[in-house]
Amino acid sequence: MDLKGYNSRIANDVNVALARELAVGEQKTLKEAMMHLPMSGGKRMRPMLALLVADAVSGSARRAMPLALALEIIHNFTLVHDDIMDKDDFRRGVPTVHKMWDEATAINAGDALFARAIEVLSTLDAPMTVFREVIHDVACMVRQIGEGQQWDMEFEKQKKVTEEDYLKMIERKTALMFMTGAKGGALIGGGTEEQVKAMWEYGKHLGVGFQIHDDWLNLMGNPKEFQKPIGGDLLRGKKTIIVLHAFATMSKKELAPVMKGFGKEKASKAVLAAAIKALAPSLKYAQDKAREHGNMAVALLKVLPDSEFKATLKDLAIYAVERRH
Amino acid sequence: MDLKGYNSRIANDVNVALARELAVGEQKTLKEAMMHLPMSGGKRMRPMLALLVADAVSGSARRAMPLALALEIIHNFTLVHDDIMDKDDFRRGVPTVHKMWDEATAINAGDALFARAIEVLSTLDAPMTVFREVIHDVACMVRQIGEGQQWDMEFEKQKKVTEEDYLKMIERKTALMFMTGAKGGALIGGGTEEQVKAMWEYGKHLGVGFQIHDDWLNLMGNPKEFQKPIGGDLLRGKKTIIVLHAFATMSKKELAPVMKGFGKEKASKAVLAAAIKALAPSLKYAQDKAREHGNMAVALLKVLPDSEFKATLKDLAIYAVERRH
Repeated sequence: MDLKGYNSRIANDVNVALARELAVGEQKTLKEAMMHLPMSGGKRMRPMLALLVADAVSGSARRAMPLALALEIIHNFTLVHDDIMDKDDFRRGVPTVHKMWDEATAINAGDALFARAIEVLSTLDAPMTVFREVIHDVACMVRQIGEGQQWDMEFEKQKKVTEEDYLKMIERKTALMFMTGAKGGALIGGGTEEQVKAMWEYGKHLGVGFQIHDDWLNLMGNPKEFQKPIGGDLLRGKKTIIVLHAFATMSKKELAPVMKGFGKEKASKAVLAAAIKALAPSLKYAQDKAREHGNMAVALLKVLPDSEFKATLKDLAIYAVERRH
Repeated sequence: MDLKGYNSRIANDVNVALARELAVGEQKTLKEAMMHLPMSGGKRMRPMLALLVADAVSGSARRAMPLALALEIIHNFTLVHDDIMDKDDFRRGVPTVHKMWDEATAINAGDALFARAIEVLSTLDAPMTVFREVIHDVACMVRQIGEGQQWDMEFEKQKKVTEEDYLKMIERKTALMFMTGAKGGALIGGGTEEQVKAMWEYGKHLGVGFQIHDDWLNLMGNPKEFQKPIGGDLLRGKKTIIVLHAFATMSKKELAPVMKGFGKEKASKAVLAAAIKALAPSLKYAQDKAREHGNMAVALLKVLPDSEFKATLKDLAIYAVERRH
C-alpha cells in the first residue's frame, strides 16, 4: 500500500476515533472548544507514523491506536496554546480557538485536550514495562516541546542565534513528536532494542527534515498549495535555518535585500520577492540539509523486515522533505 | 501524630522532592517559571491527603509519593493557568507567573508542569491495574477540573445559577483533586474495594466542605489570618453558595445592601460591611453545610483500621471546615 493509500485509510480511522474520544464531558463550551481544531483537518502524520511503525515491526497498528490518538490530540493541544502565544487568528483555514471563544477558554481547552490524551493513552494494551515507558516518553515529550516553544519565542528577541541553537529548538518543538511516535510504535509492536532505537532516530531525522523543508516551503511554496502565507516567517523575523545561514555566510551588502523584508510585517510583495531571490544560496543549503535528513531516516529503516509498511515508511521520509504543502 | 505534626513532616519531604523533581530540563526561563509558584509555599494539603490515606490503609506513604507529588504539581499548574484566566496579579504573596514573565511563558510553564507531573507519576511502583487506574484518574481529574473552571467563568456572566450548579462546579474544580488523592492513596496502599470507594467519597466531602468554608472565610475570615482580601469574591460578583442562598431566600428589600457590594469592585468598606451583615443567615447556612460535609467525611473513615493516621484524617476533615486561613 502506498503512502497516500495508507494515509487515507488511517486518517479515516483516526478521524472516527477522535470524534468519539473527544465527545466527552458535560461542559458544552469546553467540549466544543476541544473539538474545534482536531475536527477541522490536519494531515494526521503523527498518528500515521506510530501506526505505520507498529505495522512494520509486527503488523500491530491496531494496538498502537491509543498512542496514535494521544499524539494527534497532543499535537492539537500544542497548536491551540501556540496560537494564543503567537497571537495567530487562523489555522487550517478556520479561526483559532481563542478567536472563536476567548483566551481563557482556549487555555482551558488546550489543558483538557492534553488531559484527554493521557486518558486515551491509559487504555493502552501493553506489558507493564512498555506501558510505563510510553507514558513517560509522551509526558517527557510534552515538557520538552515546551522547551522548544520557549526557545522559539526567545530566539525572536535574541541577537545571536546559531544553527546549533535552531536545530536544538526544532528537535524539541517538531521532531520529538515524531521520535516519540516512531519509538512508541516500535515498543508497542514488540520490536527489538535495536529496532526501538533506530525508530527513535528515524523519527528525529524525519522531524528535523520535515521542519527544515517547512521553513523552505514558507519561502518557496506555491501559494495555491502551501496553506500559510508565503514569506510569513521572514516578515515576522523568525530565525529559520535559511536566515541563520544567510547571516553567517553573506556580506552586509548581499544581505541588504533580505534585511528589507526580515521582521518587517508590512513589507511589499516586491521587497519580499527580492529578499527571497537574495536568499537563493541559503535556500539551496536548507533544501540539501532537509534531503540529507530524509536520506538518513531512510537508511535507518534497514533494521526492519521488508514489507509494504517498511516501503511506506521510506515514502514517508521522502514525502517529509519533498512535499509541496 | 497530630495533623500539624504530620503536615510539617510531609511538607518538608514534599518540598525537598518538589525542588528535585522540578529542577529539570535545559531551558532556563521555562525551568524558573515552572518552579516559581510551587516553591513559593502552599499548605501541601493535597499531597498530604494521598500520603495519609496510604499510611492509614497500610503504612505505605512512601510508595504513594509519586502520586502526592504529581497532585501538588498539577495543583500548581492549574493555579498558574487560572491566574492568567482570572487576570490575578498576586498569589501566596508573590507576583503570578504571567506577571513575573508574560502570558505566553505562563501558559507554557503550566503545560510543562502538567507534563512533569505525569512523568513523576509514571515512576509509580504499583501493580499494572493500580498503575493504569491511577494514571487514568489523574488525567480524567485534570479534564474535569477544566470543566469546573469553565463553569466557574460562565457562572459569573450567567443570570440563573442554582445551588446544584454551584455544587457541581466546586466538586470538579476543588473536590476532585482531594477525591483522586484519597482514592489513589487507598489504591496504592492496597486497600479493599470498600476502602477505595469510601476514600473517594471522603475526598468529595472533604473537598466540598473545604470550598464552602473557603467561601465563608472570604467574607468572615480575619484579615490578619486569611491570605486573600476579605470580601473579594463578593465584590467580584462570584456566585458562591452564600450569595446563591441569599438570592433564593431573601426579599428584594433584604437583598438591597448585598447588591450594593455584589460585583462592585470599588465598593467602600462600609458598603462591604453592610453587605456581610445582611448575609448573616446565608453565612450561617453555608457554615452549617460545610460542617455537614466535614461530618460526612469523618463518618466515612469507619472503613479504616484504627490508627494514628485514621485519627489524623479525622482531624483533617475537621480542619477543612473549621480553619481560619
